[in-house]
Amino acid sequence: MKQVLYRNFGNPPEVLEVVESDTSVLAAGQARIKVLRAPINPSDVAQIAGQYGVKPELPAIAGLEGLGRVVEVNGNGIEEGQLVLLPSVGTWATEMIGTIDQLVPLPEGDLDQLSMLRVNPATAYLLLTEFVELNPGDWVILSAANSAVGSYILQLAKARGINLVCVVRRESAVADLKQAGANVVLVDGIDLAEQVREATGTEMKLALDAVAGDTAGRLAETLEDAGTLVLYGGMSAKPASIGIDPILFRDVRVRGFWLLPWILETSKEEQTKVYGELTMAVAAGILHAPIERQFSLDEITEAVTYAMAGERSGKVLLAPNGA
Amino acid sequence: MKQVLYRNFGNPPEVLEVVESDTSVLAAGQARIKVLRAPINPSDVAQIAGQYGVKPELPAIAGLEGLGRVVEVNGNGIEEGQLVLLPSVGTWATEMIGTIDQLVPLPEGDLDQLSMLRVNPATAYLLLTEFVELNPGDWVILSAANSAVGSYILQLAKARGINLVCVVRRESAVADLKQAGANVVLVDGIDLAEQVREATGTEMKLALDAVAGDTAGRLAETLEDAGTLVLYGGMSAKPASIGIDPILFRDVRVRGFWLLPWILETSKEEQTKVYGELTMAVAAGILHAPIERQFSLDEITEAVTYAMAGERSGKVLLAPNGA
Repeated sequence: MKQVLYRNFGNPPEVLEVVESDTSVLAAGQARIKVLRAPINPSDVAQIAGQYGVKPELPAIAGLEGLGRVVEVNGNGIEEGQLVLLPSVGTWATEMIGTIDQLVPLPEGDLDQLSMLRVNPATAYLLLTEFVELNPGDWVILSAANSAVGSYILQLAKARGINLVCVVRRESAVADLKQAGANVVLVDGIDLAEQVREATGTEMKLALDAVAGDTAGRLAETLEDAGTLVLYGGMSAKPASIGIDPILFRDVRVRGFWLLPWILETSKEEQTKVYGELTMAVAAGILHAPIERQFSLDEITEAVTYAMAGERSGKVLLAPNGA
Repeated sequence: MKQVLYRNFGNPPEVLEVVESDTSVLAAGQARIKVLRAPINPSDVAQIAGQYGVKPELPAIAGLEGLGRVVEVNGNGIEEGQLVLLPSVGTWATEMIGTIDQLVPLPEGDLDQLSMLRVNPATAYLLLTEFVELNPGDWVILSAANSAVGSYILQLAKARGINLVCVVRRESAVADLKQAGANVVLVDGIDLAEQVREATGTEMKLALDAVAGDTAGRLAETLEDAGTLVLYGGMSAKPASIGIDPILFRDVRVRGFWLLPWILETSKEEQTKVYGELTMAVAAGILHAPIERQFSLDEITEAVTYAMAGERSGKVLLAPNGA
């Protein structure tokens, strides 16, 4: 079997290497999974660079998510041939071994789309469900709206009849988001809160921010009393700067969201339910992310270089066992 | 009767004036209260300056808290002679009219200390009880620890066996807080979180911040996973600047606290319970704030000027009906 390994944290094209490993025998309660697809996400790049919330012990196998098929089982609880979300971490490999009890089964579907389900769509789903109760007609504001997670949030919110203010950093991103169904699209700036009030005539119930810095504070200003700002990223690489008025005088709450503890601490039943719903949303055409290119494991250097380059129109996938 | 009135927002010594008003007849359900004591707090100064969370309609009578005695009743539910917390707002007067249903009765006690109960001790009490459950031995960190609220927090926490890290801005404030029973006293600076870890060997469960700016972020760094930072003031006049790591990767939560909605929205029963407990804490010698000077209403300009001056060793009180 082949695995993509790094012995030191650093720039992915420089530290990643493909190694041949022996296939190990399954222990009781384990299953062998053939890796079908594994996306290259910004969180993979951050983890390889040593800039993620948790650092793996080195050497480590790269890759935080993907899709696979069970090819061998030692125990009960899953069948050979079952499509599953790959266990985190180490998905950039031709095969993985997983604990049967922890494998999340998926219905059959679009392999490319399902391979990206574990991180971004689940993040989008949980951001919209774990913090405030949203009903059709409620308003949500979203920074970095043209990111992968942003796009999934828009798709899920639209399907639920929730109104979205999408905030982006460049005017060039506005048209696509309007096309995708955003109610209001605004370019971030110091008068953002005023622009939001003018465009919507109302206050936001939830603000989802992946930028931090001043953007976090601007989103907080748009919230209703006791509204919640959820930080789930820090693209600006700056601390969240939040004026005290919304927090002090309007009881605005600030929370954070990180998917990893949810994956580690949530029951398999709950995860199967969430990923089952997301699979149905893929099947219904609600959730979709554009794919730009597919690479083999042997092309890993080219693949991560390509994935890390600025302007892409879609996701880069690894297909370790071919198309 | 006399009242302290302002017709415009501005610098209190310049905009405050003492006016003579006619005593009005009580409507059904009202009581007349003779004002015994009313403190001059920073929140009074902020409200007169037009820099508070809510702006009163002008002209307005100044004063947000104080102690009085019921001298006339039109209805049932309270007796003449009962000591009460003064209704907010308009306490800088020789008398006030209150709605019987909303008056919070107090047991007899030290008039000076009880006159300051409504705002700062209640804030301290609620900061320690409304956000996280604290048990003896838990750690709390506190900025502006030498402020009036800070001092009450220290007193209440100590009585409950809670450990306190007190953060101040000047080395000169350290000795007094150690004397007052703080477990650890530190001067704020960029290495605050590291200093806290070294001094305590543990993480904080709750952080109480009245400074905002970078201090808010430093306090957040000291919190345990899922710990809470409560902002209740913004002395630095800067936005709260909070690094994303604690929020994103350790689920630290940021909340705000403002007493006014609690006073307006909490049942009289609950308030009577809280203020009853605080009165007992005064009687038991747990709660005490030093008094520096007492003024009559006619001396209001001198009194606010004195209260607004930098270094004082105690609170300034108004005694509208004499000592």
